[in-house]
Amino acid sequence: FEKLPFSDKTDLRKAYPLGLQAVPDEDIIRIHSSSGSTGTPVIIPYTRQDVADWSEMMERCFRLAGLTKLDRVQITPGYGLWTAGIGFQTGVERLGAMAVPMGPGNTEKQLQMMQDLKSTVLISTSSYALLIAEEIEKRGIKDKIHLKRGIIGSERWGDKMRARIESSLGIEMFDIYGLTEIYGPGISIDCHQHSGMHYFDDYLYFEVIDPDTLKPLPAGETGELVITTLAKQGAPLLRYRTHDITRLIPGECPCGCKFPRHDRIVGRTDDMVKVKGVLIYPAQVDKLLASIDGASSEYQIIIDHKDGKDVLTLNVEIDDVDNSMNMAAKIADEFKAKIGIKVVCIPCAVGQLPRNTGKTKRVFDNRVG
Amino acid sequence: FEKLPFSDKTDLRKAYPLGLQAVPDEDIIRIHSSSGSTGTPVIIPYTRQDVADWSEMMERCFRLAGLTKLDRVQITPGYGLWTAGIGFQTGVERLGAMAVPMGPGNTEKQLQMMQDLKSTVLISTSSYALLIAEEIEKRGIKDKIHLKRGIIGSERWGDKMRARIESSLGIEMFDIYGLTEIYGPGISIDCHQHSGMHYFDDYLYFEVIDPDTLKPLPAGETGELVITTLAKQGAPLLRYRTHDITRLIPGECPCGCKFPRHDRIVGRTDDMVKVKGVLIYPAQVDKLLASIDGASSEYQIIIDHKDGKDVLTLNVEIDDVDNSMNMAAKIADEFKAKIGIKVVCIPCAVGQLPRNTGKTKRVFDNRVG
Repeated sequence: FEKLPFSDKTDLRKAYPLGLQAVPDEDIIRIHSSSGSTGTPVIIPYTRQDVADWSEMMERCFRLAGLTKLDRVQITPGYGLWTAGIGFQTGVERLGAMAVPMGPGNTEKQLQMMQDLKSTVLISTSSYALLIAEEIEKRGIKDKIHLKRGIIGSERWGDKMRARIESSLGIEMFDIYGLTEIYGPGISIDCHQHSGMHYFDDYLYFEVIDPDTLKPLPAGETGELVITTLAKQGAPLLRYRTHDITRLIPGECPCGCKFPRHDRIVGRTDDMVKVKGVLIYPAQVDKLLASIDGASSEYQIIIDHKDGKDVLTLNVEIDDVDNSMNMAAKIADEFKAKIGIKVVCIPCAVGQLPRNTGKTKRVFDNRVG
Repeated sequence: FEKLPFSDKTDLRKAYPLGLQAVPDEDIIRIHSSSGSTGTPVIIPYTRQDVADWSEMMERCFRLAGLTKLDRVQITPGYGLWTAGIGFQTGVERLGAMAVPMGPGNTEKQLQMMQDLKSTVLISTSSYALLIAEEIEKRGIKDKIHLKRGIIGSERWGDKMRARIESSLGIEMFDIYGLTEIYGPGISIDCHQHSGMHYFDDYLYFEVIDPDTLKPLPAGETGELVITTLAKQGAPLLRYRTHDITRLIPGECPCGCKFPRHDRIVGRTDDMVKVKGVLIYPAQVDKLLASIDGASSEYQIIIDHKDGKDVLTLNVEIDDVDNSMNMAAKIADEFKAKIGIKVVCIPCAVGQLPRNTGKTKRVFDNRVG
């Protein structure tokens, strides 16, 4: 399998508009498309069987999250060219629950329908779930809300945000994963154990590779997720590099479900660096700092190559600058223990590191090449 | 059948949110909703069979319009709570053509996809079809457009607009009809004879009634369309008053299709008045004036009751006021001949009648009661 070539977004873009199509025109019943916000869009053609397979996976996701025919599922992601809305809806209908097809935006109407129809499940991005939770708190209408579960996808989100939404809405939340190139959302999901996301290995072959050496990593090791479709007809893909960072989880899940698991997506390979043979990605550092009292969320990782070896410096904001020495030692110890690398920690006061309205640059790699 | 009671939008609104539901919760897989822009929205629950039946009717519509598996169908109506987008998409997919699920707006992207994917069918409102036609003319890209057919619904539209879109896009256009309360769009459509819209009498029973006496009218006479659902499970409706004005067309269609026909929708009963036992609606007057050289599109109908009888006055703008006397006589003659009622015609210069940014009031009924 390792001898097979990889495919990547660039290959797909070159195929625009319908170069990926692997069956005759009369067998294609639908297209979906990525937004094209970062370049030429990618168009994925679907056969009737592709739509049915996706819908089958989506139904499995909903079953893993405990949904039944009596659930009323408020679908807030978009419809149209994007794969989200209609994929969720088809799965809900296949399960036999009630789809409440809202589409994105119009929070006023979302809250009205949530109350009037007694919706029991919210499908949304994490940002939108947070916004809805905050609106419900602000209006004091929590007792009029009947939500029990959230199916949340499309963005990486931290435990803090998760806890906030869960407690504020009083729901259990399930991460759902997917990408336009591979059906859409619904190719893996959390079960109620919340100890990894089950993916459907009868439809998809998952590998995790080292993004530098491109060699597959053993289960348990974190790297880039690579997916091969096993049944897709309209646009099959071989070893497609998702650039999403995760790991395969060895062993069986206590939930009893036989489908294998991968861990939550912790970032993108664009955010990842390799230092002394170890992959480091910001989500790890986010998580590490969140676990240390007195450390803020703001940091910078600076990597230099000095005297023939990599040197890692971590600038980090701390609450109590009088306690800098202790904090520096503590953070460096934790870094070594949890991420496995020695780091020089330089604490500073909160507000000293740059703030950014867009995406904050956190990794500065000064090594050549 | 005439002894059965009517149902009306008011009854449906009173049933908000789910009072119309006629089956247990576990059998409902979806809701759709009217916009609620003119009051409480109406929510229609669908069973799996309802969705399948609707999709079957929609596929029949596409077959009547001549679509095949090789067509690429650009769907511009909205998705979500509205019944439009997903109804069209399900029908396209059931037929086996390729759905290009655009949803509303973003004309730039619509035109791009239309060219890149070589879309052969446009589904839209008449307004949006006109906008797209104008954009294509403006950009001079007609030779890059592969459209052959338009499936146009949701708004009443005149022959002039139709001719304009057809010639500018070089397509054949098919009127499609439907309403949220009765599945959605796709319950009737033009065939290629364009001599009436076929409706599916195995799913729906159509009557045309006199909106005053509420008595059914014979085929060929114009009145209000009343629909009874024959197979709907989620929210069956008995003698639902659509308030749309049309007539049933007697006889068989030369196209060979056995499904019966109704005429295009010419207006709403809200726009309709009964004078001397004859129903008059603005669309008739629009059409009449359009056929008379020198008459503008702007008019007012004033109805008074004098000396025991109804008197009809028609204020109408004309191009050449020096020719008022002749025009007045001509318009009155045509009115009598085509609409069947004597009218006092008072011509005035173009621009003298009020203009309105919203809906223009054209009928002023001064009779008591």
